[in-house]
Amino acid sequence: MFNFKITAKSKETRARAGIINTAHGSIETPVFMPVGTLASVKSVSSEELVSAGAGIILGNTYHLYLRPGCDVINLFSGLHGFMNWDRPILTDSGGFQIFSLAKLAKISQEGVSFQSHIDGSSHLLTPEKAVEIQNCLGSDIMMCLDNCIAYPSSRDEAMDALKLTTSWAERCKKAWDNGSKAALFGIVQGGMFKDLREMSVKALVDIGFSGYAIGGLSVGEPKDIMLDIADFTLPELPDNKPKYIMGVGKPEDIVDLVALGADMFDCVIPTRNARNGQLFTNCGTINISNSRFKYDKKPVEHGCECYTCRNYSRAYLRHLYMSKELLAYRLNTIHNITYYIGLMKSMREAIIENEFEVFREKFYNSLVTKKKD
Amino acid sequence: MFNFKITAKSKETRARAGIINTAHGSIETPVFMPVGTLASVKSVSSEELVSAGAGIILGNTYHLYLRPGCDVINLFSGLHGFMNWDRPILTDSGGFQIFSLAKLAKISQEGVSFQSHIDGSSHLLTPEKAVEIQNCLGSDIMMCLDNCIAYPSSRDEAMDALKLTTSWAERCKKAWDNGSKAALFGIVQGGMFKDLREMSVKALVDIGFSGYAIGGLSVGEPKDIMLDIADFTLPELPDNKPKYIMGVGKPEDIVDLVALGADMFDCVIPTRNARNGQLFTNCGTINISNSRFKYDKKPVEHGCECYTCRNYSRAYLRHLYMSKELLAYRLNTIHNITYYIGLMKSMREAIIENEFEVFREKFYNSLVTKKKD
Repeated sequence: MFNFKITAKSKETRARAGIINTAHGSIETPVFMPVGTLASVKSVSSEELVSAGAGIILGNTYHLYLRPGCDVINLFSGLHGFMNWDRPILTDSGGFQIFSLAKLAKISQEGVSFQSHIDGSSHLLTPEKAVEIQNCLGSDIMMCLDNCIAYPSSRDEAMDALKLTTSWAERCKKAWDNGSKAALFGIVQGGMFKDLREMSVKALVDIGFSGYAIGGLSVGEPKDIMLDIADFTLPELPDNKPKYIMGVGKPEDIVDLVALGADMFDCVIPTRNARNGQLFTNCGTINISNSRFKYDKKPVEHGCECYTCRNYSRAYLRHLYMSKELLAYRLNTIHNITYYIGLMKSMREAIIENEFEVFREKFYNSLVTKKKD
Repeated sequence: MFNFKITAKSKETRARAGIINTAHGSIETPVFMPVGTLASVKSVSSEELVSAGAGIILGNTYHLYLRPGCDVINLFSGLHGFMNWDRPILTDSGGFQIFSLAKLAKISQEGVSFQSHIDGSSHLLTPEKAVEIQNCLGSDIMMCLDNCIAYPSSRDEAMDALKLTTSWAERCKKAWDNGSKAALFGIVQGGMFKDLREMSVKALVDIGFSGYAIGGLSVGEPKDIMLDIADFTLPELPDNKPKYIMGVGKPEDIVDLVALGADMFDCVIPTRNARNGQLFTNCGTINISNSRFKYDKKPVEHGCECYTCRNYSRAYLRHLYMSKELLAYRLNTIHNITYYIGLMKSMREAIIENEFEVFREKFYNSLVTKKKD
């Protein structure tokens, strides 16, 4: 069921436009996936996601495994039925969140043992278990359990994590072979060491996956290092498979990474920052709490077709935000998701028209005019 | 522009169905007005209110005067433009919230001086100022400044408050005469003393208003006293004007008060309780956090046409609520508002069909089956 086709390639960069087909329909790439941690993209409904143009969302296995749990989601034959979302879903493996949220996470060859951040209960996540949970979630694209390390890390640490990631990837593939309907993506690790990234790619390609993700970026490293590692690693991955950069990023990062050949992105920035009052526009970000918006009758962005911009002024959004009204978080989130998805769509069109570099120049020129408005 | 027509009367009770016409369209009575304190019915959009069947909402003058302030709302020619709501709006006078929220509220013949609960700034609300602010808000139905007292209160306290309310009502009427486009309602006070209620009604009717509200109920008194005072006061009010019971109440209270001849209601119960997980059904309330809903695939109420019930299960709503997901508050609120407005609609139909008592019996019988489900 799962396949990936490249529709167009930019001549001057490595940017490409494609289509991913899944059991829940097709996704046009490059694509941004809003994060729906707990079976909800915070503050917005499934209908609003569709209106904002979202073609796929991401669910977090760690969170959903703990709450509501697989027994509940199983009753609905997976996340789609549970949360009333009928487009594709990608699920992470749970590993990243265990390291960042759970208590007493301990890594062994077998897997990761941890205590729930909610009730302290003890759990063991193995590669096999990660696949089993993602099967239960009804994921369209599942991710291998990986060992993501912090920045900076020593070469030895990066090597150890890479070896473990490779061994877990093999076990995930084996568990997945046992009748999963979803696609399975491998995750490249190797820290900021190019030879280790190369080693990781080769090992994963030998195992063979439906797509490949680059993990371990956006973990605190400077942007030039992130781009350098992505620039090195992306062309190493098979061109006929989707290439996914995990957890990145700002609009500028995404534009640069698309130029380097990345197809898929997820990040909490548009949704989390919306809840903190930060709104994205073609001229950069604005913070809606700023007093200069108190009497501003304009929409967040002139010409934006999102529900928020079609119906509400900056003055109203500022008022809601200052008053901590729940509607504030939703209206801000709708705008930011629409912005991110519109950005992906513009890039896709530019690639197809073979005008990606023109687009990129315009995109950066527009950012420079920031705060003029 | 403003007028009220009675469409049908129940033969066995004092219940009546009518139509109120305003500059922003007509409202079918009996009507429930969701509370939109700060230019937002908490967690829901204007479109969702329309889908839930809301014909009119209430705005709180005290809150809106302090935040965002009349200068901001003036830019949008009133609340309608500011919050993107084109149906009628009723605004209270601000008095009730000053007594319950503001610091150092001091009542004099002139008005109420108080300090903002937000920044401590000093203000004076006079009857003239209350009308001026409500004019600026672009209200369709504005309320006179009144002096609402706590329960229990002595006869002397009730008498003093009633006299002040009458004097303020005269001044509101005079200020309103000066070119307001809205309707102006008088508010009956008099505590739990029937002769004082009668005195208040007579004084207000002498001044002459577009409609009459009964204030000072639901301030802590037992339900039988509330109903007794309403039962006494409602028939004293002119039958050709809308009769509004302020701040009430539970569905049972509203059904009983409609039977006694009340036309209009507002209350935070459906919206506030939604945010605390309490959902209204024909068989009584449920609390969605209850563990018995963990695996419950049913909607909140079978046959309910609200967005929430059409799309989501109790298990999903429970999960969202337990996870403190923002979507929980919205989905719960949509259901509860739909329930309240559906209840009003059912009563109206029953009155028109002259089957109000049959309806009321069914309504109570259904409540008795509570928690069977």
